[in-house]
Amino acid sequence: MTYKKQILDKVAEKQLLIGVVGLGYVGLPLAVTFAQEGNKVLGFDKVAEKVKKVNSGVNYIGDIEDWELEQVVESKYLQATTDFEKLKECDAILICVPTPLDRYKKPDMSYIEGACTEIGKNMKKGAFISLESTTYPTTTEDFMLPIIERESGLKQGDDFWLAFSPERVDPGNQDYKTKNTPKVLGALTQDGLEIGEAIYKLAIENIHLVSSPRVAEMVKILENTYRLINISLINELALLAGKMDINIWEVIEAAKTKPFGFQAFYPGPGVGGHCIPLDPFYLEHIAKKFNFELSMIHTAGHIDLLMAHRMTLKITSALNRHKKSLNGSKVLFLGVAYKPNIDDERESPALKIIDEVVNKGAEVNYHDPYIPEITTEGNNTFRSVVLSKESLSEADCVVITTNHTVFDASFIESHSKLVVDLRNVMKEASDKVYKL
Amino acid sequence: MTYKKQILDKVAEKQLLIGVVGLGYVGLPLAVTFAQEGNKVLGFDKVAEKVKKVNSGVNYIGDIEDWELEQVVESKYLQATTDFEKLKECDAILICVPTPLDRYKKPDMSYIEGACTEIGKNMKKGAFISLESTTYPTTTEDFMLPIIERESGLKQGDDFWLAFSPERVDPGNQDYKTKNTPKVLGALTQDGLEIGEAIYKLAIENIHLVSSPRVAEMVKILENTYRLINISLINELALLAGKMDINIWEVIEAAKTKPFGFQAFYPGPGVGGHCIPLDPFYLEHIAKKFNFELSMIHTAGHIDLLMAHRMTLKITSALNRHKKSLNGSKVLFLGVAYKPNIDDERESPALKIIDEVVNKGAEVNYHDPYIPEITTEGNNTFRSVVLSKESLSEADCVVITTNHTVFDASFIESHSKLVVDLRNVMKEASDKVYKL
Repeated sequence: MTYKKQILDKVAEKQLLIGVVGLGYVGLPLAVTFAQEGNKVLGFDKVAEKVKKVNSGVNYIGDIEDWELEQVVESKYLQATTDFEKLKECDAILICVPTPLDRYKKPDMSYIEGACTEIGKNMKKGAFISLESTTYPTTTEDFMLPIIERESGLKQGDDFWLAFSPERVDPGNQDYKTKNTPKVLGALTQDGLEIGEAIYKLAIENIHLVSSPRVAEMVKILENTYRLINISLINELALLAGKMDINIWEVIEAAKTKPFGFQAFYPGPGVGGHCIPLDPFYLEHIAKKFNFELSMIHTAGHIDLLMAHRMTLKITSALNRHKKSLNGSKVLFLGVAYKPNIDDERESPALKIIDEVVNKGAEVNYHDPYIPEITTEGNNTFRSVVLSKESLSEADCVVITTNHTVFDASFIESHSKLVVDLRNVMKEASDKVYKL
Repeated sequence: MTYKKQILDKVAEKQLLIGVVGLGYVGLPLAVTFAQEGNKVLGFDKVAEKVKKVNSGVNYIGDIEDWELEQVVESKYLQATTDFEKLKECDAILICVPTPLDRYKKPDMSYIEGACTEIGKNMKKGAFISLESTTYPTTTEDFMLPIIERESGLKQGDDFWLAFSPERVDPGNQDYKTKNTPKVLGALTQDGLEIGEAIYKLAIENIHLVSSPRVAEMVKILENTYRLINISLINELALLAGKMDINIWEVIEAAKTKPFGFQAFYPGPGVGGHCIPLDPFYLEHIAKKFNFELSMIHTAGHIDLLMAHRMTLKITSALNRHKKSLNGSKVLFLGVAYKPNIDDERESPALKIIDEVVNKGAEVNYHDPYIPEITTEGNNTFRSVVLSKESLSEADCVVITTNHTVFDASFIESHSKLVVDLRNVMKEASDKVYKL
């Protein structure tokens, strides 16, 4: 029996063991979704704490309901381990590891490299391997394949199959979760594509096949580059609009009445999260190898780099109207998550603004109902304070950095001396309210 | 009786005379739409030929059906004139004149200036005036208002009302025409806003009111800047994808399966038409007055400036593989309109490529079913040739510059020696077919 027939038979009988490497905001929902559909799933993570939580049915990801995790752990469809030797039991291995940038905005491929090394050392013959992490086009072919073949001594196409299928997780999205978000898949060989489609269909409603991993890699980067470019554009236009006495939020609402050819993006203190600020720079990195300068990404990145500084200037200007300097003023930040109603502050512009404001001598506090504690890149540590009449009125300036739905605009306005609203939470600008 | 009551009464009784200044692709459909709804319309244009055509019921605009124009002219609801003194008869004056860029990409405000001068000289008291031409924010207040008040000796708010309401005409759009495309309106005073809304409602289904003309001006520029930015991004990514052996069209199709947060744009030889290549530079112009550099628009404009040259390089490379130089080769261009299925070649990238290819010594012909004759910026004049086996096979290289629906990919491919497809008309790249 060929390996291909073997794995497809197992798919048909739902007898696969699916390994998910990396149990973060992508991997855990993926693992849970496969398990919910009646597939045995083994989750791998280096962090013992995460593995312990999963095996105890304790949820730590916002996009999963607690009962969902409990159910699949109790029914034994999902288990987790720190022991990567167990990869040898897996028929399919789905890699969901981080692909961050280093401090110089260069791709940090160490997580993918580590995963491929472990997989190569431990995998069995006939396994299907798919990377879901966002990365630059050619990663699967030129970076992963040599590591896995070298470590395993096996041959792609004969002994195993390698594919790329980008995650499209949108944290906090209530409509689209892992199961009902169409999944793009590109494999190195036609057999791998067929096998991959069959496997992903066990858990995901729609699979869109493309001709190669590099096309699939580019798809994900296009999606997020589109977002970076458009957010940077509207941020730049917002800064100009401020100078021209034009309410940019009103402009966007009006532009949205165009029934074709327009999609609204909203300004803010800068992009955040683990995708939009990072993914385009993976492409910029590989483009250099092809002697190509991606000027749009470069420009958008430049706008974004300066946003925290520009927001600090807005805070300074606002205080200045009250004849106060930033140095010595009490500044209360409302919201440090990078987008509303989630508990994730990675790459959040709020943290960058806080660092700069601290450096300039302000006395900083923050409140975020979802994030009890933060440590900034500048190594400033804070605990969330209570949002109250007192905490608002004590501050010389209240800065709204995240538009969590629970924030009550009139409560904030009535108890604050001065509000700098970077998220259109306040309806009207006034002597007391500064709007981006 | 106040002027306000007077004009609102006339609206209620449909007794207005509506003047439309400029009978081009915006003004004529607007005039016809008002006339179809039973309003008397007088169209103004300096070009006697256009006025004569309108008065004879001879249509020259693609977005109007011939019978529509005939009907409103026959019923006398629409008449046209070159005599701007007749502006004094009009209760409402809607200005739809061109706002081009000069050869140095600076706004050419002469048409607006001319219209305002004529209106100021001739208008009656109590008139409502609205500009529909795309222009930089502050134009209505700072450029138009002083001219009209000076020429008329009248006072805005007391003797007349001035507003801005951007046209949103999308030539060739079958779903959205003047009547059912929501219209944004901003006026200098609250009375002007009320009057303007009442007047536009006579012909247009939805009016979206904003707080000032400058907001309305910015709305239109945002809409088209969004398009320029995204087309330039995808053009840049297409050029990189070509180097990386990635089919950008396949990437876009796959990205479109993302059910949120993405809107597809397609690459091509550059932006064309009277909006997207122009409007953002109106904003860039005024931004300088505010000491502000619009880096996204600048970068997008730079990509676009180079597209014709890059397309020429693609043609050169394709010929080179056939061991031919561009100099002396016969190049046949298919399509010179700036977008499919329309008869408009303004700002079309095809013309720029033709100029460059001619300069490099190629022998050029073109075919466009909608455009019988062209004159390029370089003053090269051509007449459209027949699209036939012979014309295709005679050419050393056939370049598809516009994807008119009537173009038959397999017919083109089977009779051409070499095809450079800049519009994804051909399904597959091959030795014979080069795709952007």
